[in-house]
Amino acid sequence: MAASFLKVAATCVSRCAARQSLSMRTFSSTLPVSQSVPPSLWKLGRLNHVAIAVPDLEKATALYRDVLGAKVSATVPLPEHGVYTVFVELGNTKLELLHPLGEKSPIAGFLQKNKAGGMHHICIEVDDINSAIADLKAKEIRLLSPEPRIGAHGKPVMFLHPKDCDGVLVEIEQA
Amino acid sequence: MAASFLKVAATCVSRCAARQSLSMRTFSSTLPVSQSVPPSLWKLGRLNHVAIAVPDLEKATALYRDVLGAKVSATVPLPEHGVYTVFVELGNTKLELLHPLGEKSPIAGFLQKNKAGGMHHICIEVDDINSAIADLKAKEIRLLSPEPRIGAHGKPVMFLHPKDCDGVLVEIEQA
Repeated sequence: MAASFLKVAATCVSRCAARQSLSMRTFSSTLPVSQSVPPSLWKLGRLNHVAIAVPDLEKATALYRDVLGAKVSATVPLPEHGVYTVFVELGNTKLELLHPLGEKSPIAGFLQKNKAGGMHHICIEVDDINSAIADLKAKEIRLLSPEPRIGAHGKPVMFLHPKDCDGVLVEIEQA
Repeated sequence: MAASFLKVAATCVSRCAARQSLSMRTFSSTLPVSQSVPPSLWKLGRLNHVAIAVPDLEKATALYRDVLGAKVSATVPLPEHGVYTVFVELGNTKLELLHPLGEKSPIAGFLQKNKAGGMHHICIEVDDINSAIADLKAKEIRLLSPEPRIGAHGKPVMFLHPKDCDGVLVEIEQA
């Protein structure tokens, strides 16, 4: 982060309503000391991918392959998910470029609102998706389907509601 | 990706103008075969972090720590960058939760437009940032400052213009 030039990316720079009076270093002390936390039955794992919805898949692929020098996959059509996908390898994780496939593509609405494209979701692995789902339900995190579905990698996935995740669409995937 | 339920996250679902007639598997063959590509003087590396701007840092920290079970840092105020930061460890990479610090915070405008929060940028490491910058300039990628600045990790960073990166604010950082 460098303060001054990030503003260029923000079209609406305004005075911030930050809660600066908040004592930022005292978060963990707000939990009652006596509260017993049961051992978690599941564990969060690696960041599997960052998904980026793009209006022009050829142009986006060329950016990562030819300009940035990343290793990229061939375009993979996933008609059952309504997207074309290109995987961009970054060594420790990957980006997934998504482009609509079909009239009912689930990312069509996102691209209508974000015509230049943008970050669509992050996917984090879990070691036991059924335990994770039960736990998240108990913790009142809204989920976008009643049961896990099979995701683009052939593994069970679940999406968490962005309104419960700071505006971010979070996918969890069985590792 | 699971097509049907992702729509819940898109408030504007509409018919897609996807270029389905495009032959998606022929991208790399569009480069002239005889074109000589000079060896790159720099290499793209790991995904260093995904930055998420949040309106309520305590709530966001609690989500990743208490609900998702991730290891999170203490809150780090970075007044020179105009943000409070919490680092969320994911094993292979990290999330950085950002909250405005000060009246001129560079993320204030983003949160004005995205009141619930959202993904702000991705940061990818490079092995030689000066070579990368020269190369990106030659390839007509717009940069958000004339020279690299020292970022939140004490290393030189540069931001690439979102309009040249499919709507995504991309930071490169010296590894």
